[in-house]
Formats: sequence, structure tokens, C-alpha cells
Amino acid sequence: MKIQIVRDVLEANDQLAGDIRNIAKKEGFTLVNIMSSPGSGKTTLLERLIPALTNKEIRTAVIEGDITTTADAERIARMNIPVAQINTESFGGDCHLGAEVILPALHQFDLNNLDLIFIENVGNLVCPAEFDTGANVNIVVISTTEGEDKPLKYPLMFRVCQIAVINKIDLLPHLRFDIQILEENIRKINPMMKIVSCSAQTGEGFDQLTKLVIAKR
Amino acid sequence: MKIQIVRDVLEANDQLAGDIRNIAKKEGFTLVNIMSSPGSGKTTLLERLIPALTNKEIRTAVIEGDITTTADAERIARMNIPVAQINTESFGGDCHLGAEVILPALHQFDLNNLDLIFIENVGNLVCPAEFDTGANVNIVVISTTEGEDKPLKYPLMFRVCQIAVINKIDLLPHLRFDIQILEENIRKINPMMKIVSCSAQTGEGFDQLTKLVIAKR
Repeated sequence: MKIQIVRDVLEANDQLAGDIRNIAKKEGFTLVNIMSSPGSGKTTLLERLIPALTNKEIRTAVIEGDITTTADAERIARMNIPVAQINTESFGGDCHLGAEVILPALHQFDLNNLDLIFIENVGNLVCPAEFDTGANVNIVVISTTEGEDKPLKYPLMFRVCQIAVINKIDLLPHLRFDIQILEENIRKINPMMKIVSCSAQTGEGFDQLTKLVIAKR
Repeated sequence: MKIQIVRDVLEANDQLAGDIRNIAKKEGFTLVNIMSSPGSGKTTLLERLIPALTNKEIRTAVIEGDITTTADAERIARMNIPVAQINTESFGGDCHLGAEVILPALHQFDLNNLDLIFIENVGNLVCPAEFDTGANVNIVVISTTEGEDKPLKYPLMFRVCQIAVINKIDLLPHLRFDIQILEENIRKINPMMKIVSCSAQTGEGFDQLTKLVIAKR
């Protein structure tokens, strides 16, 4: 018999992440992990994206990660879809969601009746990128107010994601910000990245984002 | 003889932070640690604040913390003040600056000829709050585009700081954002917090911020 040794936290996390992907395959849902800095607009984005998916008869649920508060989960619950809240404060104020908290959150859902489950990770452009949540797709949201240099300064985040959403394009006329430089910087780190520009406030760009997310199923 | 046991990383960090405060006292400088989410405007804020301090014959230096790149340090160096760059990539891509990286950075300066040394921490509203850098003053920068709820969602950051700078007030006319709610949320977490609103882009509010920083010496 092979004896398994769990070497460290990251290895244990990777094992659980693999288990989660097996569950997703078996139950037939896609797990999508959304990451960003605090205040980039992840919740507002979900408030636009989920009704668009519901319209196309795609059944969604959300796992909300925050250090503390249930404010975002309450906003999501208003859309009448299943939502699970993880407060990392109980895990020592963790700065990210690991697979070990995603797994029990998933078990709160009727997985058989879901097509897409979103994870809204803790607002942090550093640590969440280091921990595999078991997601099938990783999305990074970056807002126009954060400056063009962020992909270069936080490269791991842009390496582990397949889709980059540039949010808050409605503010472009008021900013000293060049969206082309941001796109170039994203491609310097990850030439394969799918990039969508949108405004979760006005809805601009959401047709394209909805299509991209559906294509990833 | 008493045998010292260093129990864990945080305890070792606190010991070094105490050493740094002793050096600051002996050499007569004040160490100011600036923290925020990525893209809240820390570097632009320093580009306004430092010339204002130089005008008042206050001698400054900056320790720049980034996971990778020297982009911010290069901007600071243009003001002809001493700057030390810490890239945490060499320390495993750390998401914060600990006292163990601040101490050698300080030794790069002629400490005897400095009044105020700024630390521009890694852009992250979570982890930097957990590590004492040895600073005498902690400042959090929060921009108007990040939403009113951030103090409630990232309470530790607002607990460990003495000054909160609300940046990007020039964007207020274009946002669905209530600055009074943000201020109330800050005071819920930290009733003693000094709050200054400003725009590092236009310069509004910098007279007050400069006075506040000078008063903390």
C-alpha cells in the first residue's frame, strides 16, 4: 500500500482542489473563481452577469468570500439564487479562499441542479492567486481606476487567470489612463489571456462577457 | 542568563519592529508606513506630499515595497530624495513588508540626516496590517472608487492605522459613492482615526494632509 505524505499546506490544498474538480466533473457544473483588488466591482459584475445567464437558462450559485460581513452575500441573495458565505475571520482572518473552505461550501448546494458556480474571492490581488480553489476557470477583474501597471506588479494573478475583465470603462473620460497600455501589460504576462472591457455600472460589454463565460462551460 | 525563545514569525517580527523604533528614536527620524489596495494612489500621493515637506525643510526618504518591478521607486527617485527598493519576489512573493526587510532598507540611508522616512507597502488591504513594520505612524489610503464598505470588510487595516486618507475625491461627481458613509464606516472600526479627503491628482486637501503628517513627528 502506498503511504501518502501531505508535505505542506499548499500540497494539501492542491489535493483538495483536485477533489473539487472531480466533483464538478461528476455533478456536471463549472466552477468559476473571480479575483481582484478590493473595490474593483466583483459583486456588481455578478449582479449583471447572473441575470444574463439566468435568461439563457443557466442555473447559477455563488460562494462569497470575505474576511468579515455578509454584505455581498445579501446582495447576491436578492437575485434568488443559492449563495454560501465564507467568512475567513474564523480561519484567522485569511487573505484568500483555499480549497478547504470551498469544499464544504459546495456541499451546501444541490449540485445536481447547477450549471455554473461562482466564487467571489477575498479582495486581494496577491494571495488568492497562490491557492488553487479547485475552479475550472479563473477570472481577474481589474478596474480602470487602478492604473495600467498592475499586471506587471502582480504578475502571478495574471498568470493563473484565463479571462481578464477590465471594469469601470464608464470612468475612462475622467481618468489619466490608457486602456491599450493595460492590455499590452496583461499580454506581456499572459499572451493567451482573453480580455473583455466592460462597465458593471452601465452594462456595456456584458454581452461579450456573458458569451465568454458560457463558452468556458 | 535568560534564554530567549523566538516562538513564531510574528513574534520575531515584533522584536525587530521594536529594534527599528529604537533606531528611529536614537537617530531622530519618524517612520511612516503607507498601506492601501493596489491602485489607490500611494505613489502619486507621495509625489505631492514629499515636495510639500521639502518646502518646509523636512528631509524625507522612501522605502518602496513591491512584489516585482522598480517602477514606483523610479518615480520617487525623480524627486531627488533617497529611495530604497524592496522586491518581495526574492522572499517568495510576499504579500506584505515585514520588519526583517525594513531594517536592512533603513541601513541604506544616512539616517542622521533624515526627518521622515516613508514606507510604501505592497498594495494589499489585508496582510500588511498583520505585520508591524516598526513604523511610528500607519496611514491607510482608500480611494473613492473602492466603495463605502471597505472599512467593515477589512477592519484590521483600519484598526492599526492612525490616519485614513480618502483619495481621488476629484472623481466624486462621476461615482455612486457617499463619502459620509465611508467616514462613518471608518469611525465604526476606529473612532480615533484622523480622516483627510484629498485628490493626489489635483492637489486638493494636501495642505491638511501635510500638516497632519508634520504633527505626527
